[in-house]
Amino acid sequence: MKIFIIGLGLIGGSLAKALCRLHTVGGFDFSEDVMKKAESEAAITDLPIEEADLVIVAVPPKHTKEACIQNIPKMKRNAVITEVCGVKEFFSEDLTVAAKLYGVDYVGIHPMAGKEKFGYDYAESTLFEGRDFIIVKTAETTERALQIIYSTAGDINAGKITEISPMQHDAIIAYTSQLAHVVSSSYVKSRMLAFVDGFCGGSFQDMTRVAELDEDMWTDLFLMNRDNIMAETKQLTDSLNLFYDALNKGDREKLKDLLKNGRERKEHCRIR
Amino acid sequence: MKIFIIGLGLIGGSLAKALCRLHTVGGFDFSEDVMKKAESEAAITDLPIEEADLVIVAVPPKHTKEACIQNIPKMKRNAVITEVCGVKEFFSEDLTVAAKLYGVDYVGIHPMAGKEKFGYDYAESTLFEGRDFIIVKTAETTERALQIIYSTAGDINAGKITEISPMQHDAIIAYTSQLAHVVSSSYVKSRMLAFVDGFCGGSFQDMTRVAELDEDMWTDLFLMNRDNIMAETKQLTDSLNLFYDALNKGDREKLKDLLKNGRERKEHCRIR
Repeated sequence: MKIFIIGLGLIGGSLAKALCRLHTVGGFDFSEDVMKKAESEAAITDLPIEEADLVIVAVPPKHTKEACIQNIPKMKRNAVITEVCGVKEFFSEDLTVAAKLYGVDYVGIHPMAGKEKFGYDYAESTLFEGRDFIIVKTAETTERALQIIYSTAGDINAGKITEISPMQHDAIIAYTSQLAHVVSSSYVKSRMLAFVDGFCGGSFQDMTRVAELDEDMWTDLFLMNRDNIMAETKQLTDSLNLFYDALNKGDREKLKDLLKNGRERKEHCRIR
Repeated sequence: MKIFIIGLGLIGGSLAKALCRLHTVGGFDFSEDVMKKAESEAAITDLPIEEADLVIVAVPPKHTKEACIQNIPKMKRNAVITEVCGVKEFFSEDLTVAAKLYGVDYVGIHPMAGKEKFGYDYAESTLFEGRDFIIVKTAETTERALQIIYSTAGDINAGKITEISPMQHDAIIAYTSQLAHVVSSSYVKSRMLAFVDGFCGGSFQDMTRVAELDEDMWTDLFLMNRDNIMAETKQLTDSLNLFYDALNKGDREKLKDLLKNGRERKEHCRIR
């Protein structure tokens, strides 16, 4: 298959490194340094977008829609375009329509992989191995597009593959991903942060790991999924307030109930 | 050295398994099965507490003070007693006085290691390797006690060793450990939890890992450190509310500032 990747950052670069083992991969990045590096590592070769069977757009969220719309007209008929943005409903319909106009099939994907570090230099061919892989499907998604995406997910050794609608995707991701970044960024605001060296178990590291994020990208993601993130943030602060009240009252039974309920919910949802 | 460990759960059992490689280790656990298993694995041998140079109390928080006070009279003069409870101010002074009465030295420790699983069956000799190790020191802590504790920390290959007062210990641990458990237990309360399978990146796993906890033990710890945990919970909900407000207003600059500040704080505090 011929694949063209637009944006060779952490995700696009990792896709190039993984897919070049099996396919002819072309690519583009605004950074000349990145282009040179990707070429010298043979992650990309000299393939024009016009020849690609699959185009993967892996640019920052803010530019995803625009990058797709600008490149769809260059693509050959019956090719498939996808993008890896962490929010979907915002542009899903527009891209479906734009792709259709040019005889191209659009389907969104969201490989659930990342790092606290970003950019091509941190890209790895193994980034997606065993990780959840989401296919964002609408009534207009074609079988052909699905087939190409499933085979690509297999090529990068993705873990569980799930199909879902754009609306449901955004609601769930607000909880599993975006809320985690809100919490991590909030957790490090405590005045006690200055004194933690020497006092850290694994739980502190876990809580604060993703506070090291790309604020431009996450600001855009947050604004593209505002209502869902607000709803999750509200639910979380409500739950935290229950702890605060139980502590304030010294209510042992209530505290224990809250913790027990949390343990049981976690055990019940244990994934894989 | 002769060491006696009271309570052979995850922490006590791991200490026995680590220390028996270098020392004569005796021990006691209410569970006969655990006693048999620890003996059969040679983690403990037939050493009476009366002969121990160091007694380590590793029972649940609720029983820590009582277990120390009951066993101090059995100890030989100039021996050292320590305990591994996650909260210290609650009983620090009482134990110092009780130990002094019997010519024994008390000093608290807090090895920052744990697991989501508890009990002897999960104990491992390597549990403490490279992990932070806290020595909770008061004006009355003796050099002799400190020497024994430092050498024991070395024997279990602890990482960074820090001395601190009981009050400071509790204030910092409320943030680095107990708040993380409050958050994790609250995070899993979202109604969205039922739909996460297939949608999880590392950040969701990190946020929810410690929700699987022993609710009896953590209820006791929380109640023994109420004020500090309430203060940290309040700070966190305040920070979360700033995100909520910025999202609600669609205030891009504010959102970006909150995330940038979080990233910078995290980078600045990067530990080891």
